[in-house]
Amino acid sequence: MKREGQFAAKQSDSLPSLLNSYGEFHGWVHDKRVLGGLTFLIIGDPKGLYQVVARGDLAKDAAKINRQSYVLIKGTVRESKSNVSKYEVEAQEISVLNQADDLLPLDPASKTKSELTTRIFNRPLDLRDPSEREIFQMRAKTLSIIRGYLSNRGFIEVDTPKIIATASEGGAELFKVDYFGREAYLAQSPQLFKEELVLGLGKVFEIAHYFRAEKSNTVKHLSEFMSVDVEQAMATKESVMKLLEGLIKAIHGGLMRSGFNVSKLQGQFPVYTYSEIASAIGVKFGEDLGSDELNEFGKGKGYYFIVDWPLSLKPFYTMPKEGGLSESFDLMYEGLELASGGQRIHQYDLLVKRLKESGLNPESFAEHTKVYRWGMPPHAGWGLGLDRLMMVLSGRNNIREVVLYPRDAKHI
Amino acid sequence: MKREGQFAAKQSDSLPSLLNSYGEFHGWVHDKRVLGGLTFLIIGDPKGLYQVVARGDLAKDAAKINRQSYVLIKGTVRESKSNVSKYEVEAQEISVLNQADDLLPLDPASKTKSELTTRIFNRPLDLRDPSEREIFQMRAKTLSIIRGYLSNRGFIEVDTPKIIATASEGGAELFKVDYFGREAYLAQSPQLFKEELVLGLGKVFEIAHYFRAEKSNTVKHLSEFMSVDVEQAMATKESVMKLLEGLIKAIHGGLMRSGFNVSKLQGQFPVYTYSEIASAIGVKFGEDLGSDELNEFGKGKGYYFIVDWPLSLKPFYTMPKEGGLSESFDLMYEGLELASGGQRIHQYDLLVKRLKESGLNPESFAEHTKVYRWGMPPHAGWGLGLDRLMMVLSGRNNIREVVLYPRDAKHI
Repeated sequence: MKREGQFAAKQSDSLPSLLNSYGEFHGWVHDKRVLGGLTFLIIGDPKGLYQVVARGDLAKDAAKINRQSYVLIKGTVRESKSNVSKYEVEAQEISVLNQADDLLPLDPASKTKSELTTRIFNRPLDLRDPSEREIFQMRAKTLSIIRGYLSNRGFIEVDTPKIIATASEGGAELFKVDYFGREAYLAQSPQLFKEELVLGLGKVFEIAHYFRAEKSNTVKHLSEFMSVDVEQAMATKESVMKLLEGLIKAIHGGLMRSGFNVSKLQGQFPVYTYSEIASAIGVKFGEDLGSDELNEFGKGKGYYFIVDWPLSLKPFYTMPKEGGLSESFDLMYEGLELASGGQRIHQYDLLVKRLKESGLNPESFAEHTKVYRWGMPPHAGWGLGLDRLMMVLSGRNNIREVVLYPRDAKHI
Repeated sequence: MKREGQFAAKQSDSLPSLLNSYGEFHGWVHDKRVLGGLTFLIIGDPKGLYQVVARGDLAKDAAKINRQSYVLIKGTVRESKSNVSKYEVEAQEISVLNQADDLLPLDPASKTKSELTTRIFNRPLDLRDPSEREIFQMRAKTLSIIRGYLSNRGFIEVDTPKIIATASEGGAELFKVDYFGREAYLAQSPQLFKEELVLGLGKVFEIAHYFRAEKSNTVKHLSEFMSVDVEQAMATKESVMKLLEGLIKAIHGGLMRSGFNVSKLQGQFPVYTYSEIASAIGVKFGEDLGSDELNEFGKGKGYYFIVDWPLSLKPFYTMPKEGGLSESFDLMYEGLELASGGQRIHQYDLLVKRLKESGLNPESFAEHTKVYRWGMPPHAGWGLGLDRLMMVLSGRNNIREVVLYPRDAKHI
């Protein structure tokens, strides 16, 4: 049956094992060259590129196939002298499964990249550019390394609601949802849920999309983003910093072993206190560290931690430390904040006190705080922005480069 | 330092290796018995239960600790004659890290379960009941098996937006979001995105929460649910059915090997046509198969497929088949629909025609349909409801039992 043959076709990674044999291959026409009586098709698929040679009448037919069309090729595999691939296919038959338009919004084979906006609006086509596709292959591999690392350490993956009744960290930039006539919100983080779950599950993690109605149009903010969240019973700020540093190193190592071009990390991440940095960049105690100043301070520093933040700069659930400080940390890469975490309050009375001091109404949080009366263990954790980490790993400077369909105040 | 000692404490799974040695352990007081001059604490943690014996003054102090309080125990491990655990701890010191309230909304140690509503409203405490916790450990393991199975077969994990501008499958039950003053929606599925991504990534999957404004209050619907979505270039309905059947079998096998109590599946899943079932249960061609009738028909059948659905009952992107039928399938377990899928339309003209025939405006879908002019390969895929699968695997009859914080029209 023709149909079965069609769907049994193979991809570029099968070429070596089919050397000097007949094979059937599928892919898209990445590029095309007509030379004398020959047509050379450069075929692309998610694994790579290879050359197909067509002669005679077949060369004439092949010359008519538009770039990016999806094709099925039957022929013999042989070694290639081209600079495209080690192996090529001498075509006996070429079927066009879906002809692409003659004019396309961008050319994935071009060495000159289209503008970012054009690429994002036409993302599926942009993914036929191997250097763009690689970012999302790297993203998938990174997620897989993260899950393996945390599962091996006894963390259990959970999934908590994205539609919530109250603001989890108190107000600020929530998207409203019409929930059967009632007002609800989209979750900004799984913070309160993951802390609650420590009560019975001990060590949890969640990887999911969260939502922030950020109006600011920057290269490092999106209104829908992916976060890696960890929470652990009987952990300290120090132990979860160690866990996070180990994870980042495992990601670099794992990506390298998978052939991605990332740097090898050596030595421990440096730790700076908030006060050290604040005085270095001329910021008064209690004021936030500005983005420009952190860019300046972080230059050439790679990954590093900032600890001992003023309690007033951190959310209500953060464990206080003497001197107006908190048991919290940020993980930075140069000037970019990647993760935030620390030890949390586990005592009911202190939690209610801190809610009040943060200007929040404890009654609105009663369904959450009640859990702290059931024997909540001391616990610590962090949230890591996956999209920002992918910026670092891929070396791209705009968060929109590493998200398939980025959402910001302008675009949906 | 006291602090370091506290956080170096161990859990029940370390007991065997510490036999006849001193150890420090943390956990909650699952149960408590005072007998003569002795106090027996049954300590719980995510790995299990064990007995702690306190004597003399320590027994008096231990007797005052409320159930569910979080404690740190120092003592010697020895073999136990109790029916709780093989090993127990002869306590030398017991510190209460967080005293629980005297009165709790439910007792996780009780053999009589509280009502489901009570358990859900107090889910973190309910997870201290080992039989409830096990469901979510099984859920995490199931997710891990799914990711391994698909990754091993070359599928790449993607994440697509949950905030969308247009209704993905045409109207019906969408939650509205106020997106910077514009109207947007919460995604019901990643259907259109995953099809678009096949263009450059070939084989993709996504596991995420989706949203449906279901007003119906049933034991198998939630307004926020988790879906496992797969889409594959150059696949047929038959090949993705085989992929799905293999996945279900891999899940049963993997869970069994991890010690979960699930059945071993044997033989191939039976395949019924829509028409066979429709005539068996007395439904006219073109009408949907009712829930009660499917419950009756599916009784004792385990997993099975239904194929050859009328095209009119399937979404616009479904590939038509002769005789008013479609290249689609549902995977059922008894009367419960678990998954839906099939071959999709990959031809632009046919897709636009089917949009019109389905009463949808092709212009609203222009940003989606344009992708089909760029050389879209033939493709097929499916969506699997994870929560429903967990009902089957755990043997629970209400979807709320297998979701940590279930969302329905009444509860948020």
